[in-house]
Amino acid sequence: MSSSVDGMARTRLSPDERRTQLLALGARLFSAMPYDDVHIERVAELAGVSRGLLYHYFPTKRAFFAELVRQGSEAMLAETAPDPDRPVLDQLRGGVEAYLTHCANHRHFSRAVQRGAASADPEVQALIADATGRHEERILATLCDGEPAPELLRLAVRAWIVLLRTACQEWLDQPELPRDQVRDVCVDAFVGMMLGLPHGVRPRLADELLAGAADVIRSEP
Amino acid sequence: MSSSVDGMARTRLSPDERRTQLLALGARLFSAMPYDDVHIERVAELAGVSRGLLYHYFPTKRAFFAELVRQGSEAMLAETAPDPDRPVLDQLRGGVEAYLTHCANHRHFSRAVQRGAASADPEVQALIADATGRHEERILATLCDGEPAPELLRLAVRAWIVLLRTACQEWLDQPELPRDQVRDVCVDAFVGMMLGLPHGVRPRLADELLAGAADVIRSEP
Repeated sequence: MSSSVDGMARTRLSPDERRTQLLALGARLFSAMPYDDVHIERVAELAGVSRGLLYHYFPTKRAFFAELVRQGSEAMLAETAPDPDRPVLDQLRGGVEAYLTHCANHRHFSRAVQRGAASADPEVQALIADATGRHEERILATLCDGEPAPELLRLAVRAWIVLLRTACQEWLDQPELPRDQVRDVCVDAFVGMMLGLPHGVRPRLADELLAGAADVIRSEP
Repeated sequence: MSSSVDGMARTRLSPDERRTQLLALGARLFSAMPYDDVHIERVAELAGVSRGLLYHYFPTKRAFFAELVRQGSEAMLAETAPDPDRPVLDQLRGGVEAYLTHCANHRHFSRAVQRGAASADPEVQALIADATGRHEERILATLCDGEPAPELLRLAVRAWIVLLRTACQEWLDQPELPRDQVRDVCVDAFVGMMLGLPHGVRPRLADELLAGAADVIRSEP
């Protein structure tokens, strides 16, 4: 039996456990350094397994990365899940904050997903599109309380998700900007958009958002 | 002398005139049909010139398209130029409206620039980045009246331009949505964002925007 570079004896794991272990190690590497600097063979070393075994689970760096994107999207969606018991403006604010925090905690990974060579990979693009779609459906379900969403509202939410993603990437480039300020810019863009919807299209819950925003505007000096 | 498929005699043009003619014909083709359906050899036919001459000016379809993107960006920036004599909210509304109209008038071209194979071309991406940068600088210059823009404001404007572009592409997919409603969604997202900025970061002109928005909210039933 080979031993890992850390000197730990190689542990016998079930295929599922091994896969989980390799992904966890990979997630750490891709979060700690830019995509191009990651050598997935290092994952095999850290796990104390042969490169052959690594390639058995993930034949290429792209395939490994795509699987991490799938996992990362699930984690992000879970971390940013709204709490339906809170006021809708709090849900929105909490969701944006959780998203920014998630990306900051996985800075290099998040950048690799959104930019650079790996982000153009069709599988990665499909995963991003899927995550965006689920994010969108969740926001629409909250706003419309299960009613079908008008197309203009859907367009607005879709465009806003891209704004959020862009603002987040810009913030990762300039971490000296306070997170809460970036959050407020995104939240208030959303509130503004809801205000821009005609009455027939504006969902009931949006009025709750607008009431909060109006209070803020009224309190302006 | 050869004659064109339209039966018109081939005209002697200076190199500059010929180039302009070829680009004008190409712009029509790329606006009329999806990128993949365009054969640039058709441009040679329409111009009544040999394919060899066309390739002399534009060696590949990508190069031809990139030149059209360059031209199209200039046209778009010119068409969406704000009128500094109008109130700032009108400037914003007019600019968004002009942008949506520009893209609707060049539907297929605009889609090819933003999506699909050609949009991944490094030259096209660089041209889009350049146009986005100039758009951003123009908005910041208007808002800040020539003062240097705070980084948070720059982040907000940059994210908003991406929102505008996304909303526009979504609208091109669903042209039954009224243009003015899409415009208002984008305008009010911008106004909302300005509201989300802390006072120190909020440019003087943004207060003008917010005053208008507050009036709208106050007039809500």
